[in-house]
Amino acid sequence: MAIELYWGSGSPFAWRALLTLEWKQIPYTSKLINFSKGEHKAPGFIAMNPRGKVPVLKDGDVTLYETLAIMNYLDRKQPEPALFGRTPAEAAAIWREISECIYYFDLPAFTVIAPIFFGGVNEKADAMKAAAESLHGELARIEKILTTADWLAGARPSAADIWWYPETMLVERAGVNAAAQPLGLDLGSIAKRYPAIGRWRKRVETQPGCERTYPPHWKQAA
Amino acid sequence: MAIELYWGSGSPFAWRALLTLEWKQIPYTSKLINFSKGEHKAPGFIAMNPRGKVPVLKDGDVTLYETLAIMNYLDRKQPEPALFGRTPAEAAAIWREISECIYYFDLPAFTVIAPIFFGGVNEKADAMKAAAESLHGELARIEKILTTADWLAGARPSAADIWWYPETMLVERAGVNAAAQPLGLDLGSIAKRYPAIGRWRKRVETQPGCERTYPPHWKQAA
Repeated sequence: MAIELYWGSGSPFAWRALLTLEWKQIPYTSKLINFSKGEHKAPGFIAMNPRGKVPVLKDGDVTLYETLAIMNYLDRKQPEPALFGRTPAEAAAIWREISECIYYFDLPAFTVIAPIFFGGVNEKADAMKAAAESLHGELARIEKILTTADWLAGARPSAADIWWYPETMLVERAGVNAAAQPLGLDLGSIAKRYPAIGRWRKRVETQPGCERTYPPHWKQAA
Repeated sequence: MAIELYWGSGSPFAWRALLTLEWKQIPYTSKLINFSKGEHKAPGFIAMNPRGKVPVLKDGDVTLYETLAIMNYLDRKQPEPALFGRTPAEAAAIWREISECIYYFDLPAFTVIAPIFFGGVNEKADAMKAAAESLHGELARIEKILTTADWLAGARPSAADIWWYPETMLVERAGVNAAAQPLGLDLGSIAKRYPAIGRWRKRVETQPGCERTYPPHWKQAA
């Protein structure tokens, strides 16, 4: 029985699960959840994930949620290509980059993104500007890495690239939103301001199946 | 050359690195950093970790920071006992529990703890009370798991136990602090309110070397 992946358009977490499946070329059935219809809060979905969040992966009797759980499950189930490293030092480098995103990028990203998409830009302008400064600091850090390396951790594409890519895309999408323009956050053209990140994104996008993971509603809007 | 582990008393992140070393019975040299002397901001330390945070692990030429990087490095370097599972399903269960702590417990824990230890309880009382409710929800969730299982994920002690244990200890320590008492957060006796968590903690504490990881300044204060 094929793996089923429940995901939602534009969720960076779901996007990571999709990229993991695609980069490993694991066959799966795509189950696109419609957030605006509340499908992630429907009883059938809550039965799979009590938190009502995507992604959820079903593999026969196994039902999984939490993105890191899904990614590590898939990496154990089909070890090649290895996304979490082959040696202790490779594994450490990959987990360091994932951790830097979780602990230093996620919170300022959320602080910037949430008011742009869900309202409150005027009231939260100061916090958003401060958060954008943090984001630029972190983007400059990975720009520096990618100036001399093709991938974020080690010589091959890894879970670190999968982890960072969707979140930089989402931040940029928030940055081009009309609601963001009065604040001068300068997050709407990350690939131009950070050219090594721009080149890295192109490398990510030429990995197998990447185009199938692009959020459908972003295409419609473009 | 022995592994060196730089840590600070009471940091739940450093505590996890110590527990990983102890549970795997990997020999290491303990390098206790004094936060109040600012040793984590000294140039020699910043050269190891530009973020100035513990833990930092040195293994010959390899210098590592970020706790998940250190834990995964050690698990690859010495695979037994396996802390991140032996099968895909075991790995997934462990990563799910770690993720639930990172995404659902960390932020409310920080919201409660920071004002208690660093000031601002009066101004932040409402946010702290709301965060304490979230924490009780999460504690009730793991209490339920531990009512029928000895360990948080699977049949053996794992990285999930290492991840959760120090943070529940830190939350309780904040909960018994005098500054917390007027708020009625009820976080000062987690082991009593959640007896299965209390029994689990005792199991964690009888693992090899656990007593060597207990924060030294907590002992002095007790």
